[in-house]
Amino acid sequence: MKIITSIDEMRQYAAKLRKRGHTIGFVPTMGALHAGHISLVEAAAGENDRVIVSIFLNPAQFSPNEDLDAYPKPLKKDIKMLRTTKKVDCLFNPAANDVYPDGYATYVELQNSMVNCLCGATRPTHFKGVTTVVSKLLNITRPDRIYLGQKDAQQAFILMKVMSDMNYPTTAVICPIVREKDGLALSSRNAYLTPEQRNCAPIIYRSLQMAESMIELGERDPEIIKKEMRRKIKEENLEIDYVEAVSSGDLKPLEKLSGRVLIAAAVFIGKTRLIDNTIIDIQ
Amino acid sequence: MKIITSIDEMRQYAAKLRKRGHTIGFVPTMGALHAGHISLVEAAAGENDRVIVSIFLNPAQFSPNEDLDAYPKPLKKDIKMLRTTKKVDCLFNPAANDVYPDGYATYVELQNSMVNCLCGATRPTHFKGVTTVVSKLLNITRPDRIYLGQKDAQQAFILMKVMSDMNYPTTAVICPIVREKDGLALSSRNAYLTPEQRNCAPIIYRSLQMAESMIELGERDPEIIKKEMRRKIKEENLEIDYVEAVSSGDLKPLEKLSGRVLIAAAVFIGKTRLIDNTIIDIQ
Repeated sequence: MKIITSIDEMRQYAAKLRKRGHTIGFVPTMGALHAGHISLVEAAAGENDRVIVSIFLNPAQFSPNEDLDAYPKPLKKDIKMLRTTKKVDCLFNPAANDVYPDGYATYVELQNSMVNCLCGATRPTHFKGVTTVVSKLLNITRPDRIYLGQKDAQQAFILMKVMSDMNYPTTAVICPIVREKDGLALSSRNAYLTPEQRNCAPIIYRSLQMAESMIELGERDPEIIKKEMRRKIKEENLEIDYVEAVSSGDLKPLEKLSGRVLIAAAVFIGKTRLIDNTIIDIQ
Repeated sequence: MKIITSIDEMRQYAAKLRKRGHTIGFVPTMGALHAGHISLVEAAAGENDRVIVSIFLNPAQFSPNEDLDAYPKPLKKDIKMLRTTKKVDCLFNPAANDVYPDGYATYVELQNSMVNCLCGATRPTHFKGVTTVVSKLLNITRPDRIYLGQKDAQQAFILMKVMSDMNYPTTAVICPIVREKDGLALSSRNAYLTPEQRNCAPIIYRSLQMAESMIELGERDPEIIKKEMRRKIKEENLEIDYVEAVSSGDLKPLEKLSGRVLIAAAVFIGKTRLIDNTIIDIQ
């Protein structure tokens, strides 16, 4: 596994792969890798000749009051984990100064309701940072396919919309959420949890499972489902950021559930904000 | 000369050129071509294996009160002019509906003072439209070099900044202003001028020449130069939008002229707004 930190070198490396006729699968990450990230690597390796993973803790997607400084940065462990897969050809690990040099001022922004709902309601500049850095990474690596986790469903749908609007030829592949045995969705932020908090955390997934059951039993009123989910999460005395049921893909609100539906929740366990979701096809 | 209207077909055509090892020179235009555009084509043909020209009258860079509808659209004449050069391999002429389909919502924006000064002061959303459409065209054609006219110097510098910020590998080449014999800078908007207005129009260039002379004679105070230019332009009773002397490249205001300086003017002749500029290296 080659490790590249220079943007120019990364661009040249990717260009050389393309010139040789290799397809490129790209997995953008912020590091603090876990089995969820590795599932993206596996998917990329299965569909492309070469796999490029980026580790870049993107300051542009954190607001000043968020956890940029506290975010785990176990780079050596990450590198070892990627090497162990034997499926990564190149790790791109640029410095923040190179990605955002002095005087940096260009942003790629989706300007519709998709960025204001769900996580966007409490993180108003977050997705602007995400769409900007991913556009930059696409310009540098020019992959055939990009691998995104359903765990960050809103991010994935926003990136798909931006890539479509901006005419990027890259195909987005959304991979399923990977969970602990007790249902907790894998997240780099799970590392913040105390053992006690860790014990409460699976309630988020259980509330989603409950929503799935309610829908299977015929419930189509999003307000009733959201109310029950909130009640469930409150059993562990957790603070709810949001519980939502929206149209999957465009994240539009629904008066009555139908079609492909995204049920998503963001919950504070202490100071740690965790998100989870499920996508349900309603016939 | 191949004419392509489909975005997908354009992408495939450009990809095929790259796969064959050809370098691509790209000339983005809004049509209503004149010798200024042709000079960009000539420059592109001299430095690249293949030349792609786009004609796309970009609605996103016109505000509702501007001249989008009135803008000349002599497509047949444009095609003939491009064919006559024998240097254009492909004309890309997409439909507005394809470039901005229903629900389109992504914008690439330079968010610094470069977009607020000069033409940006009176056209606040103009450059957002320019940087968005050119980013899209770069994603579709992925050229080695893009050719921009110095006539739209602010646009050229803004695009260079965006391409650098966004890590596009494309090199920008800025080509000199092409002028009529009496000094009027070629512009598609010159077609709006009545014969009488056309007679006044060269005063803009003469005011720039006067600025050049003043600088050559040692004047370094931008206020004095701007005042004299305004006085000169007023000789023809024209309405001045702006006369500015700024640092070339980053468009920063200057208290004292030094280094590479952009002297630029925007003037209304009747309802027609014309721009012109000169770039001067001060030792």
